[in-house]
Amino acid sequence: MRKKSIHIGVIGCGTVGSSFVSALRKNKDLLKNRTGIEFSVIRVSDKDKGKVKLFPDIYTPDETDITDSPEIDIVVELIGGVDYAEKIVRRSIKNHKCVVTANKALISEKGMEIFKIARENGVYVGFEASVAGAIPIIKVIRESFVGNRISRLLGILNGTTNYILTNMSLNSLTFSQSLMQAQKRGYAEANPTLDIGGFDTAQKLSILSGIAFGRYVNWQEISVEGIKKIDPLDISFTKEFGYRVKLLAIAQKTGKGIDVRVHPTLLPDTHPLSPIEGVYNAVYLESDLAGQSLLYGEGAGGNAATSAVISDVVDIGMKLSSNNLSCMPILYEDSTVTLLPMKEITSRYYFRFTALDKPGVLSQIARILGKNQISIASVIQKQESPEKAVPILMLTHTAKEELVQKAIADINKLSVIKEPTVLIRLAE
Amino acid sequence: MRKKSIHIGVIGCGTVGSSFVSALRKNKDLLKNRTGIEFSVIRVSDKDKGKVKLFPDIYTPDETDITDSPEIDIVVELIGGVDYAEKIVRRSIKNHKCVVTANKALISEKGMEIFKIARENGVYVGFEASVAGAIPIIKVIRESFVGNRISRLLGILNGTTNYILTNMSLNSLTFSQSLMQAQKRGYAEANPTLDIGGFDTAQKLSILSGIAFGRYVNWQEISVEGIKKIDPLDISFTKEFGYRVKLLAIAQKTGKGIDVRVHPTLLPDTHPLSPIEGVYNAVYLESDLAGQSLLYGEGAGGNAATSAVISDVVDIGMKLSSNNLSCMPILYEDSTVTLLPMKEITSRYYFRFTALDKPGVLSQIARILGKNQISIASVIQKQESPEKAVPILMLTHTAKEELVQKAIADINKLSVIKEPTVLIRLAE
Repeated sequence: MRKKSIHIGVIGCGTVGSSFVSALRKNKDLLKNRTGIEFSVIRVSDKDKGKVKLFPDIYTPDETDITDSPEIDIVVELIGGVDYAEKIVRRSIKNHKCVVTANKALISEKGMEIFKIARENGVYVGFEASVAGAIPIIKVIRESFVGNRISRLLGILNGTTNYILTNMSLNSLTFSQSLMQAQKRGYAEANPTLDIGGFDTAQKLSILSGIAFGRYVNWQEISVEGIKKIDPLDISFTKEFGYRVKLLAIAQKTGKGIDVRVHPTLLPDTHPLSPIEGVYNAVYLESDLAGQSLLYGEGAGGNAATSAVISDVVDIGMKLSSNNLSCMPILYEDSTVTLLPMKEITSRYYFRFTALDKPGVLSQIARILGKNQISIASVIQKQESPEKAVPILMLTHTAKEELVQKAIADINKLSVIKEPTVLIRLAE
Repeated sequence: MRKKSIHIGVIGCGTVGSSFVSALRKNKDLLKNRTGIEFSVIRVSDKDKGKVKLFPDIYTPDETDITDSPEIDIVVELIGGVDYAEKIVRRSIKNHKCVVTANKALISEKGMEIFKIARENGVYVGFEASVAGAIPIIKVIRESFVGNRISRLLGILNGTTNYILTNMSLNSLTFSQSLMQAQKRGYAEANPTLDIGGFDTAQKLSILSGIAFGRYVNWQEISVEGIKKIDPLDISFTKEFGYRVKLLAIAQKTGKGIDVRVHPTLLPDTHPLSPIEGVYNAVYLESDLAGQSLLYGEGAGGNAATSAVISDVVDIGMKLSSNNLSCMPILYEDSTVTLLPMKEITSRYYFRFTALDKPGVLSQIARILGKNQISIASVIQKQESPEKAVPILMLTHTAKEELVQKAIADINKLSVIKEPTVLIRLAE
């Protein structure tokens, strides 16, 4: 017997939670028309009792009214954070409820455990909203590209940093000026560390690399550099070379394992990710059948996340309604895939040396680079007065990270070098 | 009892067919790892008996060995064209087989009938590959954006025309020169009418507007203009205004119905579809929750279509394996949605008048425009020798198609107008 209605309980009634409840009410008829099923939020909880005002008819201060209720089919967890959210999700699963979550921290840290207990309890956990807001990247990788061997994934997964970098580039601002504007406009939090340090991006990347390559990498294993060190000088110099600076999430197959990292990256103007500006997110994929693909959309905000949460709720609801969850995507694991250590990655590099304008400086630098098998693709020396230190800008061919770090350390020790050398990796 | 293997028969072994069979063999272990199911092509047929050489172990010249075989779970129809393909699809459905097709002509002309007999027979028809190659636009609209009210869809759905237009723009070629180069490189067929006339785009748009708005429009009902009339002059003049010319598929909600059309369109440089060059396809969506989204990828070729065919095969196979097709997407229809007649659409317009360089010309033109409630946003008159006709370029504010057509007809009758006026619609 086909079940014609699905009852949802929402835990956490902040921006995403309240947007989800409102959207499900507003678009209820549309959903019924598209699925044949009536989806209703029958209970909402939030620790903040003030939230009762939002949805007084369905509010409860006690989330066990949701996790333990026999009337609830799907629990939507929207509180964020790891520990408490994990408790709620585990309790829901043990009560044989499916779960939908937008919680990237939870999935990137505890995803594997949660998916396993979900399987044991015959339920399903959806997490489309945990990465890149409204961009349906989880479904596209798992379902649309199911027949593809993905070789490379590049993502702009954090709107805050993309806004800050875009704004620095368009308006010649320093990092701090641009951060302040982002905070003023609500695009950056008062404590922006998670975003600008690249950690938010790393959490999302750990989820994507798992589903793309079958190797679940804890985000703390990922090599991460934030955007704080980006100087307007480097933005304008690299523009001359035809590049833009983006905080990129990178996951790619190499002969020796998957190369997974987050750092500011120079992308050529012609790359499909280059035009992605402001708070938008985008994911670029290379795969054996589909070739090059890009998905672009709103990466944050209540409505964007709601779009993704509804997609999971409907997927699960349609299977629940026909009493058959077994056709949901299964957990893909490939035990042959190993993680390449950061020092073994290879890349092209941009260097900015700050050196005294004396004869022989370039040859000293070039000698150290040569000894470390780093070959120069192009070099520009900016003219300054002879007394002052001048910037020397360089693009390399592909080189090995370990040797690059060694070379830069040696170069920084030269007496003609007046400031620590700036290094930004390239991608193409 | 869960079925652990799915048997596929492929009818039509051209570019897509042979690419599909090869890919399914090559990535068989990957698919099993990702789905828990073994997918095998157990039979391939093609009318051309020469095709036996490609897959001698599974070839049959007789497609009823597939449509009628009790061993086959899914029939993959890759022959193209409407009549014969329809016969095969109907026969497969009546034999209770699911069908996957890449046939845009079939789905845009006969989709509704086919979906209905599929439902009656308890089977499912997948058609992801019928639009935009590897771009998973059908699944994204139906499943990922299931909770969204889509208000607008713009698509670059034909690689041939996008290549021709890109090439005209980058290399200052005429339409015929660019078409010839496209043919030489295998991007355009010997008889390119279906592509350059916009009809291929219209077929794809009819499918997309159906799933996005619940109103299935036969492609012959869609107002279509091809790219043959595009002159290099207009490409370079509109570049000065900050626009690019794309053959666009447009479907958008208006207060009076959905506005569905295909024509060369000026897009501002800043539009997310503007950077899409060469043979790539892209679809841009606006919706209430997800906001602005873009999907970009390879729109044609055997591997790109194979990526989409496999996605349908796996979706269906996973449900078949748990004996439950009822959770596949249902046909979404909204009987309240009507089609807006072309004459009632509104748009901004670019005009190129070719007029004698005499005093009073512009005022004669402007008078006719004004009478038809067409207001001018900007105008440039190119300098030429006084004896010759000069181009006058104009961008309008939003105006009504019917009045624009009337105005242009009247202007073309003026004695100072020396060539039929060129009209290109804008989108933003």
